Amino acid sequence: MKLVSRGSKERTIVAVNDLRIGHDFLMIAGPCSVETEEQMFKTAHAVKQAGANMLRGGAFKPRTSPYAFQGLGLKGLKLLERAGKETGLPVITEVIDTRDVSWVCEYVDVLQIGARNMQNFSLLKEVGKVRKPVLLKRGMYSTLAEWLNCAEYILDAGNQDVILCERGIRTFETYTRNTLDLSAVPAIKELTHLPIIVDPTHGTGKVSLIPPMSLAAVVAGADGLAIEVHHNPPEALSDKDQALRPQEFSVLAQQIFNLRKYMES
Amino acid sequence: MKLVSRGSKERTIVAVNDLRIGHDFLMIAGPCSVETEEQMFKTAHAVKQAGANMLRGGAFKPRTSPYAFQGLGLKGLKLLERAGKETGLPVITEVIDTRDVSWVCEYVDVLQIGARNMQNFSLLKEVGKVRKPVLLKRGMYSTLAEWLNCAEYILDAGNQDVILCERGIRTFETYTRNTLDLSAVPAIKELTHLPIIVDPTHGTGKVSLIPPMSLAAVVAGADGLAIEVHHNPPEALSDKDQALRPQEFSVLAQQIFNLRKYMES
Amino acid sequence: MKLVSRGSKERTIVAVNDLRIGHDFLMIAGPCSVETEEQMFKTAHAVKQAGANMLRGGAFKPRTSPYAFQGLGLKGLKLLERAGKETGLPVITEVIDTRDVSWVCEYVDVLQIGARNMQNFSLLKEVGKVRKPVLLKRGMYSTLAEWLNCAEYILDAGNQDVILCERGIRTFETYTRNTLDLSAVPAIKELTHLPIIVDPTHGTGKVSLIPPMSLAAVVAGADGLAIEVHHNPPEALSDKDQALRPQEFSVLAQQIFNLRKYMES
Amino acid sequence: MKLVSRGSKERTIVAVNDLRIGHDFLMIAGPCSVETEEQMFKTAHAVKQAGANMLRGGAFKPRTSPYAFQGLGLKGLKLLERAGKETGLPVITEVIDTRDVSWVCEYVDVLQIGARNMQNFSLLKEVGKVRKPVLLKRGMYSTLAEWLNCAEYILDAGNQDVILCERGIRTFETYTRNTLDLSAVPAIKELTHLPIIVDPTHGTGKVSLIPPMSLAAVVAGADGLAIEVHHNPPEALSDKDQALRPQEFSVLAQQIFNLRKYMES
Repeated sequence: MKLVSRGSKERTIVAVNDLRIGHDFLMIAGPCSVETEEQMFKTAHAVKQAGANMLRGGAFKPRTSPYAFQGLGLKGLKLLERAGKETGLPVITEVIDTRDVSWVCEYVDVLQIGARNMQNFSLLKEVGKVRKPVLLKRGMYSTLAEWLNCAEYILDAGNQDVILCERGIRTFETYTRNTLDLSAVPAIKELTHLPIIVDPTHGTGKVSLIPPMSLAAVVAGADGLAIEVHHNPPEALSDKDQALRPQEFSVLAQQIFNLRKYMES
Repeated sequence: MKLVSRGSKERTIVAVNDLRIGHDFLMIAGPCSVETEEQMFKTAHAVKQAGANMLRGGAFKPRTSPYAFQGLGLKGLKLLERAGKETGLPVITEVIDTRDVSWVCEYVDVLQIGARNMQNFSLLKEVGKVRKPVLLKRGMYSTLAEWLNCAEYILDAGNQDVILCERGIRTFETYTRNTLDLSAVPAIKELTHLPIIVDPTHGTGKVSLIPPMSLAAVVAGADGLAIEVHHNPPEALSDKDQALRPQEFSVLAQQIFNLRKYMES
Repeated sequence: MKLVSRGSKERTIVAVNDLRIGHDFLMIAGPCSVETEEQMFKTAHAVKQAGANMLRGGAFKPRTSPYAFQGLGLKGLKLLERAGKETGLPVITEVIDTRDVSWVCEYVDVLQIGARNMQNFSLLKEVGKVRKPVLLKRGMYSTLAEWLNCAEYILDAGNQDVILCERGIRTFETYTRNTLDLSAVPAIKELTHLPIIVDPTHGTGKVSLIPPMSLAAVVAGADGLAIEVHHNPPEALSDKDQALRPQEFSVLAQQIFNLRKYMES
Repeated sequence: MKLVSRGSKERTIVAVNDLRIGHDFLMIAGPCSVETEEQMFKTAHAVKQAGANMLRGGAFKPRTSPYAFQGLGLKGLKLLERAGKETGLPVITEVIDTRDVSWVCEYVDVLQIGARNMQNFSLLKEVGKVRKPVLLKRGMYSTLAEWLNCAEYILDAGNQDVILCERGIRTFETYTRNTLDLSAVPAIKELTHLPIIVDPTHGTGKVSLIPPMSLAAVVAGADGLAIEVHHNPPEALSDKDQALRPQEFSVLAQQIFNLRKYMES
């Protein structure tokens, strides 16, 4: 791991517009999936107002069952792009196919590689060739070393702008959807110069656990958070049990910003 | 899971030439990676003589590190195809990119989806569109239900010829590379009509454990085995610690055939 | 690990009456818990007739909930002892408290240390002081090295007669109660001279999976099996979903003996 | 789970002298094992000065190998008791044998049940009979439900003063000794009225990860922390790679107290 290791560089700052990730705290928020214009715009305005500085929305959804909602594709990307422009928020979406990487770049600011594709090496090489930052989620079965090797694939292919995202690993525990491994945050900082954020939504799978784990992630040293917000969770087409309502997100965001201020004082 | 479940069908038989997988015992053997003409042909002849009825060889290798040998690509496929023709063995290779699926079909008889790509849903949909059987390996973090849902993606896309392959799951144990879950064999047979084979090479990661686990898999009801064989393991470019030598494979294959005969008597 | 390692000894044979465990195939059968005289005697006669050569029955039950049936204690031991005498079968029971070890020895032929007590080092030292063989189950979270260190505690305390028992480890899979790690059988034989048997009852938690996994264990090289049998499973006070009926056990035992004969031929 | 569940009670406060655990923040510190008078007294004074309000020290050590240091036993308890008296700190030690519970109570203020004995039900029943609070660590393989059932054993036996302690679970990750599950803190608070603290020492196994994970635990809502401190870690007889030096602990304790003040403001 020549390129991702701490020895090679002090600290990577990933620039997205005037946001300097690794320095500024990244607060990604938005729905699991882009569903409708109303949903996307309502949520975008709400998270913008609450303090989010990046908007998420899935257009290609990796779903366990082929009969579950698979995302709106291009139509979803266009809605996401417009919601981003209207609110002034940069946007991020997941890519799951090598054939989509280059054209999806025309609609979004950051590409996401999901947990199930962490070791999709063809996809890693492909996002390594474009000039958009990449958010690389940890596989649910992945050691830190394997994860960093996946980042190395992207850097080696020419793209230095990689942000890591801890999203929980799979264990025997069933109360939570995954086991959020917050020790990965300080551990990763010992091993690499890349920024790391935390996804408490998939990491816990439970609305009630998202606020305490978000705050814990901040204190553990995370460079940001990615939180799913939906204007009406019970009607969400995916992940409805783990999406925060805009008002819940707003309260949490304020707590996070206050905690960050305390930590910097 | 409409299509893969037991309710929908008694038993799937996957035909490859005159081999009827699910009825005839499938014995896949060959090197991890296609490396050289000499290696490929020597190994192919040896496994053919030992009783293998399908030849494997990787041309696109999913490797943890970007600096590890990544496979010969097209050149490897051509060597594999020729070795198959010369020995009369059908051939199988792994695909890892949606863009490769259709043209790789021109060189091989069966497509393999590896453990790391089990939930690469784009790839599953793509191999669901072609007229070649697919060997779907279980993800190292995957429940049986998730695995079957991945097979459902392929069947739903139009390809009924799916063979499942148990290859070990990830646990805390470090003596073995993975923990081979042989109970998956009878469990899968309760849940689906698809054939299931076992890969003791990746499942154990240790040459010494391959023979006993191969025999145990047979008795547990496996429809076949996939075993890595290399004519000179210490010089293999990948998986050198877990490849059997031709002579070791030959002895094991004979034990397997004898055990099968006993079971059928 | 001075005493348990292969270097120190070729092979341990544990003698129980005229049974030579490690040489003769050990077939432990009987109910999870001793419940009533009728249950114990009916089951004992049935398993004896089917070919079992050791009778099990729990008198002290380690149960997840304090409100679950905790076992009959001394009364259970006396029933077990009588059932053993009447059928001529040696008997085995689990001990869970250091204070019970010496007096329980007066009623049984073999002491069992359960998975939850594998690292109860006080208990290991205590059973190391008595002159009864000990069946040491693998902890559900235990590496092979940790397990062998627990056996080392017993040998170091003076008792050389230890039999290991693989009973499944805990993973993320939920279809089975545990994941039975059959590769532990040949792996343990590489590491130690102690005999190892397999418990497919707890290892799978499903009646339907016990026969195939029992046969697979035999072929993997196990020195024996421990199988729960109850004359009327739906009325069992513990483990009712995983107990075989006497008739089912009888059929399976015959298959096992035939397979053993084949292997020795 | 009648007694431990949230329905039965709002919140349990465990009193130890004038310390009200569940209300006051519990800060347990001290060496893994009691080794010598010098070690115990130096460390006790240092952690007292740094702000610890309970002193730990193991006299009976559950060690993987029988040849590792097993603890000083009674001699260690006497040193621990004296160090506690001299500093005015209540003391806690682990018990591992039912036969020791009642007499150990004469030397210490709180009894600890270690992770390996979480499901040692005889021991749970025994500590349920005494009038000393019990710190119950989570087993490294234990679900939250199983853990709470173990607490139920203690409450059911008559002892209401149980403190839970998250100390990491076993996963496939090898960079850390265990995976500290901080989501257990808010999850447990949803399920029970018992206080819960966090042990970042065993939870991470790495000195460098203890400070960030301690602070994260505080923010996640932990009622306290248990941290191993040794006056000279390289010479410690157990856990030398994960013990903080007194000076490191002092800095961390100050950060924790400041963070607590911020949270209460």
